[in-house]
Amino acid sequence: MPDILHKVGIKAPPEDAFKALGALEGMAGWWTKDTTGESKPGGVIHFRFGDRGFIDMKVLDLDPGKRVLWEVIDGPGAWIGTKVMFDLVEDGDFTTVLFKHQGWKEAGEFMHHCTTKWGLFLMSLRSFVESGSGAPYPDDVHVSYNGD
Amino acid sequence: MPDILHKVGIKAPPEDAFKALGALEGMAGWWTKDTTGESKPGGVIHFRFGDRGFIDMKVLDLDPGKRVLWEVIDGPGAWIGTKVMFDLVEDGDFTTVLFKHQGWKEAGEFMHHCTTKWGLFLMSLRSFVESGSGAPYPDDVHVSYNGD
Repeated sequence: MPDILHKVGIKAPPEDAFKALGALEGMAGWWTKDTTGESKPGGVIHFRFGDRGFIDMKVLDLDPGKRVLWEVIDGPGAWIGTKVMFDLVEDGDFTTVLFKHQGWKEAGEFMHHCTTKWGLFLMSLRSFVESGSGAPYPDDVHVSYNGD
Repeated sequence: MPDILHKVGIKAPPEDAFKALGALEGMAGWWTKDTTGESKPGGVIHFRFGDRGFIDMKVLDLDPGKRVLWEVIDGPGAWIGTKVMFDLVEDGDFTTVLFKHQGWKEAGEFMHHCTTKWGLFLMSLRSFVESGSGAPYPDDVHVSYNGD
């Protein structure tokens, strides 16, 4: 099954990147401001994107400074059952984020869209970790002319 | 074999997007300023990125307003033999670019990196077509902390 892959380097230690991925206020700083729920193994996080939709993630793994792994339990049909993983690799004072959204059933147009959009959200993550200022929904960078 | 997929919407007709993908001065406006060669079926285009490397593409298809298809004939080892395709889909006064970099042998760290980087170059393409100003090498957006 096809996966979405990304890699972004962050000028910060893994602990800082982990905060932005493992804590609700971190996720709200780069993905969507409307983030609620419980970020702990077995917990469910609710990501809301206004009238653009929503995603509910179950936390499968939360390994401080190293890995965050979510499973999509509700949201867009093509996302349900897929997994989203962030692996953090320390490199001196820097961190490499290896991202994988795995388990897509079909490499269709929506997967094309989500690939580009994930890349921009990861740039938002980098900016948030490095400077405290990201571009989460509703201030996200659009990749379509209809506002997505 | 895994592919890199992207989708970007451009506020311009397909003919304008095609100019940026089919003409050397167009490519120099969003990918790398150091672009030479012959953009015609069977021709070879030389993309140079200073000390970061180079890519030579053979033009397999050049269908005005619809498609550009290249095959990598020299450059990074993992790229050789892969194909890069841009499909243009008209939607009123707008154009959707469906991008595919296909034929990767391994979904390794370099493919993660190239996915993120292609996304940013496609945002550069969009900006170049819409406003005349892109972010080609050496003015490209970096995704790694080492300047790539």
